[in-house]
Amino acid sequence: MPDPATQQLSNPGTASIIAIGSEMLGPARLDTNSLKITAVLEDFGVAVARKSVVGDRLQDLVDEIRYCIGHADILITTGGLGPTEDDLTREALTEAFGLQMEIDQSIIERIEKRFAARGWKMPEVNKRQANVFAGQTTLRNERGTAPGFFLAVQEKNIWVFPGVPHELEWMLETYLTPWLQQKVGLRKRFRRVLKVAGLTESGVEEKLKPYYEAHNHEPLTILASGAQIEIHLQADGTETEAKTAIDEREKELLTIFSDKIYGFDSDTLEAAIGRMLIERKATVSIAESCTGGLLSSRITDVPGSSNYFLGGAVCYTADAKMFLAGVDPALIQQFGEVSEQVAVDLAKGVRRRFHTTYGIGVTGIAGPGGGTEAKPVGTLHIAVADFNHYEHRKLFWPMTRSMFKWFATQSALDLLRLTMLRAATKID
Amino acid sequence: MPDPATQQLSNPGTASIIAIGSEMLGPARLDTNSLKITAVLEDFGVAVARKSVVGDRLQDLVDEIRYCIGHADILITTGGLGPTEDDLTREALTEAFGLQMEIDQSIIERIEKRFAARGWKMPEVNKRQANVFAGQTTLRNERGTAPGFFLAVQEKNIWVFPGVPHELEWMLETYLTPWLQQKVGLRKRFRRVLKVAGLTESGVEEKLKPYYEAHNHEPLTILASGAQIEIHLQADGTETEAKTAIDEREKELLTIFSDKIYGFDSDTLEAAIGRMLIERKATVSIAESCTGGLLSSRITDVPGSSNYFLGGAVCYTADAKMFLAGVDPALIQQFGEVSEQVAVDLAKGVRRRFHTTYGIGVTGIAGPGGGTEAKPVGTLHIAVADFNHYEHRKLFWPMTRSMFKWFATQSALDLLRLTMLRAATKID
Repeated sequence: MPDPATQQLSNPGTASIIAIGSEMLGPARLDTNSLKITAVLEDFGVAVARKSVVGDRLQDLVDEIRYCIGHADILITTGGLGPTEDDLTREALTEAFGLQMEIDQSIIERIEKRFAARGWKMPEVNKRQANVFAGQTTLRNERGTAPGFFLAVQEKNIWVFPGVPHELEWMLETYLTPWLQQKVGLRKRFRRVLKVAGLTESGVEEKLKPYYEAHNHEPLTILASGAQIEIHLQADGTETEAKTAIDEREKELLTIFSDKIYGFDSDTLEAAIGRMLIERKATVSIAESCTGGLLSSRITDVPGSSNYFLGGAVCYTADAKMFLAGVDPALIQQFGEVSEQVAVDLAKGVRRRFHTTYGIGVTGIAGPGGGTEAKPVGTLHIAVADFNHYEHRKLFWPMTRSMFKWFATQSALDLLRLTMLRAATKID
Repeated sequence: MPDPATQQLSNPGTASIIAIGSEMLGPARLDTNSLKITAVLEDFGVAVARKSVVGDRLQDLVDEIRYCIGHADILITTGGLGPTEDDLTREALTEAFGLQMEIDQSIIERIEKRFAARGWKMPEVNKRQANVFAGQTTLRNERGTAPGFFLAVQEKNIWVFPGVPHELEWMLETYLTPWLQQKVGLRKRFRRVLKVAGLTESGVEEKLKPYYEAHNHEPLTILASGAQIEIHLQADGTETEAKTAIDEREKELLTIFSDKIYGFDSDTLEAAIGRMLIERKATVSIAESCTGGLLSSRITDVPGSSNYFLGGAVCYTADAKMFLAGVDPALIQQFGEVSEQVAVDLAKGVRRRFHTTYGIGVTGIAGPGGGTEAKPVGTLHIAVADFNHYEHRKLFWPMTRSMFKWFATQSALDLLRLTMLRAATKID
């Protein structure tokens, strides 16, 4: 007896994606929502045949929808569902397919509630968001006021989603993934992402040379952004087949990269560090200068970080370094605020102040001003102290201010990670 | 005598952009070439009506080209001009318009030379790149092997460019810009962006109603992301004409929004605050809890912020609130860490510690854990203190942890801005 799920697999069809909104036709903004949608579709073997961006002109929208429907089995639109007059997705679908619209009173009530929860009155314009297609499925939006829709018209499946990224993400997970599971059957494509810290993109490529040769130059996707490098593995097939293949490759890569790999899939360095601190029942505090609070902010992006992060000092002046983190004024005098000695004293001092297992000290020159010949813009000193040791790194990241801040926090987080990994033994 | 450039001004037309290549339909890569093309077009007042990404299937390409030609005056394609079998742009144009192709021997010679310069022999496949349209303009590509094309078909102008970004850039500058200059003349598009704080998107819309009515529903682009709302004004014409038109609209909008507008164009709230602090020769320090360092980080994203930001305390525990910001333990005992009293004492305390003009205090519950019935996740207290006054706001942002952090910093920055604007008078 054939497995019905496998039968459905044979033809998952193709999809077309339309991003709606004139703001994405200017020279400054790209439609990034389509990437999230594509990832979900590809998991189930549905290929994206085309995607487009259209502005807020009704006739353009109507034409685009009709054209797409002629060229794909699944149409997914994002955006144009807001309350304002240039939100025309509802009207375009109505015209493209000759549908009827009606008011859904329950949506008005839900939107009114959302506003009331903030102590506000719902603006009259929001009522437009309660226009739904007669007889079609309204998709409740838990993260915003605009509901989405699912329509089956002319044997095509049409998904209409809001364009706000975190609203869209919730809706993809809540509606599109389960639907694909049901329609297409078992997930077809499997991925795993290995996250690398402490190497550049070309450093990663260099280390991968023997791997490429051993595997006949089988392609491997490497994505680099902001000192975080990801190695993407993927395999198609049943879950067992694909996972076996991926596990095998992963094992090889772990041998190649060893402690440079800090996590997998959607892991962040700050989340990996949080897990390590919890495992060790350890705590951390931070005294940061050039990163201006970003290091503390990244650590506290992790839910539950109040269990191990006790506090931070943003020491933008010599005075603050002394009275917030207890840095010895003589060290500042002798070596300057941006020095190994001050980074180490920041780490030791803040650790004492907060009575934490680890203290992190960061000092450097983010630029664009403030550089000297001896200490140019991009100079960075980071240190991690525990009860009887410290680790220090001098780095040089000559780049824009915001990139410097990010790279500096990445380096500091990685130094804490390596310090924990190697416990009380000196890192070389 | 009419100025010929002014005559041409009247109708620069609309454009459609197609990016060709299956690799841009996956979940990891976006077409960024279209942004460069858009910037060139918009400088001359040519609006982009739509843009799309299509894979390497001949029939999809033919259909897409035909569809676009029906919906714009200028069609620009990028990619699909390489030597391999999945480079089908030439074939698609041939089929879409019933053109003829012929071999251009001079192109073969040029490609052979490029290879020879590297000591290589031209692969046979590269000969495909010498197929040109009979009677049309071939665009020599100084940065690569694939030439581009310019075709005038059915009264439409078609530009066919390679997809490699630095090749495309050279071709835009060498061919498209001079053509637009000749065809469209001096006409350019001018923009201005007004930045709004302290209102929701629908709040902005509500306030704009009389404006829309007064201007016959002339479109106005409103962009909202993370509690920052932008109003985009644009006008076409000579610089003087356009600026006069924009200035007039801006004046009306400033009357409508008054102190809700904090800046223009690429301004950020933190940069606007930086300017205000410098004008007032004032300084600021921060004691933040639930925002975990993000408030200090945003302030220090601005180059030169060390001139007015003296330091911050990230007080993730009651202890830290006391010893870093000097909060009265009795207040924590009586009202709890998340309360008006503690927010105000954080602001006053950190101001005293750092001897700054202003102190900011932030305390709240970012979630997902830590909420209670009386103080649910999303509760936020912010305060700004100067030498003899303080301002306090209680807000409620029930959302994801990272969004809460962002909205909270936005609210705190805006409260500092309003405090400075209204000086020592009580804000209502």
